[in-house]
Parts: sequence; C-alpha cells; structure tokens
Amino acid sequence: MSLQEISQIELGKLKELILSGQKDSLFAYLDDFRPEDIAETFWDLEEEDQKEIIAILEKEKAVNVIVSLDYELQEKFLRTYDTEAIATEILEYLNTDDAVDILNHFSSKKAEEIINYLQDQEFARNLMSLLHYDENVAGGLMEKELIKVRLDWTMSRCVEEIRKQAEIVEHVYTIYAVDDRDRLKGIVSLKQLVLQKEGVKVEDILNEDFIYVSAYSSGEEVASVMNKYDLVAVPVVDSLGRLMGRITIDDVVDFIKEEADRDFQLQAGLTENVESSDRIWILSRARLPWLLIGLTGGLASSSLVQRFEGDLQIFPQLAFFMPVVAAMGGNAGVQSSAIIVQGLANNTLKSKNISPKLVKEFFVSLLNGAVCSIIMFAWNLFIGHTMELSLTVSVALITVIIFASILGTLTPLLLEKFKIDPALATGPFITTTNDVVGLGFYFLIGRLILNHMI
Amino acid sequence: MSLQEISQIELGKLKELILSGQKDSLFAYLDDFRPEDIAETFWDLEEEDQKEIIAILEKEKAVNVIVSLDYELQEKFLRTYDTEAIATEILEYLNTDDAVDILNHFSSKKAEEIINYLQDQEFARNLMSLLHYDENVAGGLMEKELIKVRLDWTMSRCVEEIRKQAEIVEHVYTIYAVDDRDRLKGIVSLKQLVLQKEGVKVEDILNEDFIYVSAYSSGEEVASVMNKYDLVAVPVVDSLGRLMGRITIDDVVDFIKEEADRDFQLQAGLTENVESSDRIWILSRARLPWLLIGLTGGLASSSLVQRFEGDLQIFPQLAFFMPVVAAMGGNAGVQSSAIIVQGLANNTLKSKNISPKLVKEFFVSLLNGAVCSIIMFAWNLFIGHTMELSLTVSVALITVIIFASILGTLTPLLLEKFKIDPALATGPFITTTNDVVGLGFYFLIGRLILNHMI
Repeated sequence: MSLQEISQIELGKLKELILSGQKDSLFAYLDDFRPEDIAETFWDLEEEDQKEIIAILEKEKAVNVIVSLDYELQEKFLRTYDTEAIATEILEYLNTDDAVDILNHFSSKKAEEIINYLQDQEFARNLMSLLHYDENVAGGLMEKELIKVRLDWTMSRCVEEIRKQAEIVEHVYTIYAVDDRDRLKGIVSLKQLVLQKEGVKVEDILNEDFIYVSAYSSGEEVASVMNKYDLVAVPVVDSLGRLMGRITIDDVVDFIKEEADRDFQLQAGLTENVESSDRIWILSRARLPWLLIGLTGGLASSSLVQRFEGDLQIFPQLAFFMPVVAAMGGNAGVQSSAIIVQGLANNTLKSKNISPKLVKEFFVSLLNGAVCSIIMFAWNLFIGHTMELSLTVSVALITVIIFASILGTLTPLLLEKFKIDPALATGPFITTTNDVVGLGFYFLIGRLILNHMI
Repeated sequence: MSLQEISQIELGKLKELILSGQKDSLFAYLDDFRPEDIAETFWDLEEEDQKEIIAILEKEKAVNVIVSLDYELQEKFLRTYDTEAIATEILEYLNTDDAVDILNHFSSKKAEEIINYLQDQEFARNLMSLLHYDENVAGGLMEKELIKVRLDWTMSRCVEEIRKQAEIVEHVYTIYAVDDRDRLKGIVSLKQLVLQKEGVKVEDILNEDFIYVSAYSSGEEVASVMNKYDLVAVPVVDSLGRLMGRITIDDVVDFIKEEADRDFQLQAGLTENVESSDRIWILSRARLPWLLIGLTGGLASSSLVQRFEGDLQIFPQLAFFMPVVAAMGGNAGVQSSAIIVQGLANNTLKSKNISPKLVKEFFVSLLNGAVCSIIMFAWNLFIGHTMELSLTVSVALITVIIFASILGTLTPLLLEKFKIDPALATGPFITTTNDVVGLGFYFLIGRLILNHMI
C-alpha cells in the first residue's frame, strides 16, 4: 500500500546486491526504502546479510531499522552488540520510549551498565527513571520528549521553544503548560498556537479541561481512555500533578494489538506469544502446558466413563453419543464465555449485576439447546435408534448445553473478580471442564431414563 | 482515569436529577461531563431518560453524545428520529466520516432521503460520494475534512487557510499540497509550518516521500500501513493520484479493535458481534449456526462410532478413552491454526513456503504428542489397564495430535489462498473435524493393535 513496500522481486534484487558485494549500488538501492520496509526484509535474510545492511546504512536510518524489527529478531540482533555499542551506536539516536524498549531486552543490571556509557546525562537520568516502570503501565509506555511551556509565555516564545526542541520532539501535536512547580495546568493544541497572535499568552488560551493518566495506570486503561476520547497523545502526571511525560497513540496501537493477540492465544491454549518461525522447543513449550491440562481432564473423563462401564455393557449404544455430548458442551461454553470476556475487555459490562445475565443466558441456551436436541431427536428416530436412547441423548444434550453456557458465563466473571485474566475462561480449561461434566450428566441421565423405561 | 469519568455514585445522582425534573440542576450537572462519558451512562438509563438528556444538552454536545454511543444503542436511538431530523439535528453538526457512520445505519435509499434534507450542498455531495464505499475500505473510513494547499502558496497563506477551515477540521496534523489538477504532491507537517518563516513557499519545504492509500485499500491494509509507519493521518488518493480525503488514527484504532474482536468471535464460534445486553433471539442467532455445525459433526462421529460397535462389544474399555482422544485432537489443532492465523494477520508469514512449516509442525506435534502419550501410557498401566489397551490409547493419542496439528496448520493457509478469512480455521469447524477424524484413527488403531495382540 505504501509507495515503497518491498516486494518479492525487490527482495531478490536486494539479496543479489548483498551477495555481489557492490556496496555503492546496495547503498543507493537501500536509500529508496524506509527503515520499516528494510526491517521487514530481515525475516528473509541471513544474520550476516542483516549486519551488512546495518553497517552500510547511515547511522540514524540503521537505528530506525533496528527499532522497527520484530521483538524476537531485535533480541537476536542486539545480542551481537557489546554493552558500550548499544549505548553509543543505538540508544543515543533514539527517543526515550524507543530506548527503553531496547533496554527492556536486558536484565536491569545490564541495562544500568548500558546507560552508564551514555554521554547525555539528562537522557541517561530520564532512561533510569523510565526503567522503574513495568512495560505494561503508563510509565513504561511514555516518552520524556514533549514541548513544555510556562503559563505566562507568549505564543512567539512557545514557537522558540518548539524550534529549540524540534529535533528531539518528532511529533508535537500538543503543548503542555506547567506552573512553577512543574504541575500540569493545561494544554494548547498546535493548531491553536498557529492561529493565535504572537503576543497572546499561554494562560489566555489554555484548555484546562484535559485528560491525563497516572504513571501507574495500566496499559489497558491508557488504551481505553485514548480510544474513548480520540486522543493522539495523553500526558502522564505523578501523584502531585507534575508532568512526567506523554504517551503517543502509536505505542498504544501496538499495545492494543498485543492485548488482542494475547486473548486470542489464551483462547487457543498458547501460553506465550509464539510465531511459526520460532524454534521447535519454544513452540512446544508454549503449547504443552494446555495440552497437559487437557490430558488431565481426559484422564478424569476416562475414569468417569469407567464408572459407568456397567451401563455401557447393558446399553452399548450409549457410547455412540459420548463425543457429541462432550463436544457440544465445549462449544456452547466457549461461546458464552467469549461474549462475557469481550464485554469485560470493552468495558460494556462493568458494574452490572450478574443475576440478570445468568437468567438471560439460561433462556438463550434453553432456546439453542432445544433446537439442537429436537434435530438430534428426529435424526436418531429417523435412522432407527430406540425411543429411549434418542430421548436420553436429547435430554442430555440440552442439559449439557444449558449447564456449559451458565458455567461459561460465570467463570470469566469470577476470574475477573479475583483479578485473574478472564480470557483464560475461553481456553482449553472451560472446554475440558465441560467435557468431563457433560459426560457425567450424560451417563446419569442415561441411567435414569434407560433403566426406567426398560 | 480521566478527570471526569462517571462513577456509580455519580450515575445515581444523575438518575435522581432526571427523576426530580429539575432541568437547571441537571444541565449544570451534565456540563461537568464529556459527551463520551454521558454516552456511557446510556447503558444504564431508560430510553426516556436518554431522550431527556439529549434534549437538555446544547446541540453540539448532544450530537457528540449520539456519535459516541455504542453501535446498537445508537441504532435504537436513531430510530426515534424522523428522516428530516436526522439530517438537520444530527448530520449538520458532524464531520463527513462521523456522518457516514450515522448514515450506515440506514438503507441506501433512506440515506439518500436523509441527505436531501441537508442545507449545505457541498457537505451533501461529499456524503453521497463517501456512501459509495464499503465500511471496511479506505473510502468508507476516510473523512473529507482536511487542509489542502497549493504548491506555490506561502506559509502565511497556509495559516489563513487553516484559520478559514479551523472550525471544520478539528485536528490538523498534516497539510496536504496539491497541484492545479488536485493531484497530491506532498505533505507539510503542522510543526514545519510553525517553524518556517512566513514567506517560505509550500513547494520549498514539501515532503514528497509520503505514504498514501487508495480509496479501495482494505481497512486491514490501512491499519497495517498506519501502524507500521506510526502515522496519525494518511491521505487517500484515487487512481489518478487526486486527493480524496484522509483517514485519522482514531478511526483505525476502532477498526483494529473490531478486527481483533471478530477473530476472537470466529474462534469462539460466534457469527456476529454480540453483547450480553443484546436481546435473547439475537444472542441465539449468533450462536446457533456454529452449534449446528458442531451437531452435524457430532452426528457424523456417532455414526462412525456405530460402525465400530463390534469392536466396542469385544473391548468395551475402548469407550473410556474416546473423549480424551477426541478432545486432545481438538486442542492441538486449534493451537496450530491459531499460530498460523496470527502470523497471517501480522504479516509475518506472507510469501513463505508451506512445506518447511509443515515439517516443523510435524516435529513440534511429535514432541508434544510423545510427552502426552508417555504420560498417558504410564498412567494407564499404573491404574491397571492392560498393556494392549494402554498401547492403543497412546498410539492413537500421538497420531491424533500429529494429524490435528498438521491439519490445523494447513487449513488456515488454504483458506487464505482461497481468500476466505483464515480465522475460521480456529473455530468449531476444526475442532469438530478433528473430533471425527480423531475417533476414526482411534478405532482403526484399536482394531489393529487389539486384534493382533489377543
């Protein structure tokens, strides 16, 4: 979509140029591409070729390529630098937020070592203060670079300040006005500044009704606030109201994507963010825990079935419908819990009563369960199963669907209450539970109906 | 997190004020809140109370409340307006992109009727042209409001243009420079404009290496481009390179969220975006299709088991492990397909070979399958099952896990090739298929091993 997205053909040409060793033509060729595009080619290049490219690019662009790399590729690449080089060849060219992202690849001891090599003392201090925060709170997402002005400054003085800071602050958007104790008093948009006369003072056009977040606000809260109020940047203040930094929308978009990915992974039963390019044992490690939980559930279900061995001997046809009853419980449960998980994530469920939800869920699952059961019943009679067996299967089916739906509604709400990620409830955990409980229902109902009728 | 987020206590006070009928105090109270916050209270208010609030607010704020409403609430609310009122009381106060969002609630015939009531003819024409686009392509996401300047204009003329447009274009970010045929030639950031001398011409400071999208680019492409290059706004051009509009990041964040929600829903087996507050039959409708697919799979699995009735009569213990074999196939398959689906969504898989992925998937599933099978084998011997049965179960388990993983890898890649949403592969479809095929493997292996050994 961009003017210069690297295509397969161009990738071929790039490799050719690297192999041919013609540095000049390689440099001229790379000049046409943006750092983000060059970073994407790294997926398909050998480590040596990657290094060749970084070495040949001008410093600033090379660093931007490194920043644009996917997390795993970046980690691999950084390992090839020594401590000092990370400071002087990478960090010095970066904004505080990008620099902290790089430092987060290292232990805090190593990160401090790296920071010690920095020339710019203020930059080093800023990085130290940002490193205290978790990556997933506002403090970990913010950057120190912003345009800060005093209330009594005129517009032309503000323009001067922007000119001074222009190189450090890449995107301005908003100007932050503080008092003599550095407390954030209001904001002025860049558009307002353009439209005002030079002599007008900041305090005269100040917007005092602004949105801010605290340094310890969670990433989710920041994302939800910025999304709700359509903000491109939000200031971060400490408990005394002092301006600490700002968070720009690009970092929050990444955060939203990562969050969504995490929910998707939990639902699929993956414990970490893996990609198909990861090594086999990493892929295995991410998947094994949930498989083992599923296995435990499976062992439970097998002992359960064993308890009903007698019934199975009298009515061997019961076995035919074990898989469908178990599977339908799983399906219905995941559907219910997904609706709740999404409602919790989008804040549309907050502070509401649980009981009306359960009543409604009961009716929805009654309706869907009835439709499925009737179809099943008709089909079973049609293909010649006995009335008793058909009735058992259908009664079990509707019971299991209702039970699984209620459990699927309840589980994420309970997890949320205990501050556990409710998305866990959509994963293999609920499917496995429903499998076991569903089979239990099935055999009990079978015993009840079949023994009575025969 | 915002200064003024509505809490439960405040919601109580709000309801009290509405009930008491003291319009003045209600207005004063509402004045403290932002439209987005007022919109959130609508979840907990009766329709009459909602109307009361809209009626009492000043026009502009009231319209912003309506725009901020959740899609379903908005739809319900709009039904209470007649055609003319939607034009004169809502649309006239909006940007083109927000206006189109409102119009999208109606049929295209009704939408044109509404547009006919508009006073501003240019606005009406703009809306008509935007309505042609699907909601999920760039044309449907863009707004017509932007600052457009000519190449030979000076900075001060640009400032004049911004002043003229200031009320219409809420956020400026970037200024778009076009030639005499309206073709986009480059962009100037607002920061550059602030820093340049008044007499400098646009063409002298123009950034000609800018990113744009076409009106028919998909929403995913726009989101991926804006995210990759960290853009807050991207221009939309037609096939002749003429500037048609721009897309701002806030609309794309919504889009990314909706996309992620959709994948999550597909995985959970929901066919539409439902919330637990929706009516019962809507919730039922969203869930029934996948349940019926699951049911069909279930019927298939029951006839399959029936074919092996003879084996079950000879070895009734085979029934104990039917659920675990079926479930583990489902779990492993969903894990593999989720990794592929995510890779496709994040563009990290594009244009790569399939076969190395399958080979790797084979080894990962061999490893995980082996671990599960060995644990299962040891457990089954420990609790006293026969060697033959234990062997059957474990061989079946590893076979099913490997098969399901390969199928889970292949399915989304094939769907993608046929331009079908690959996220479908993570839903009940793959689980159901794996259930049936897994059971088939199980009984075949059972027949092979048990008949041989005894």
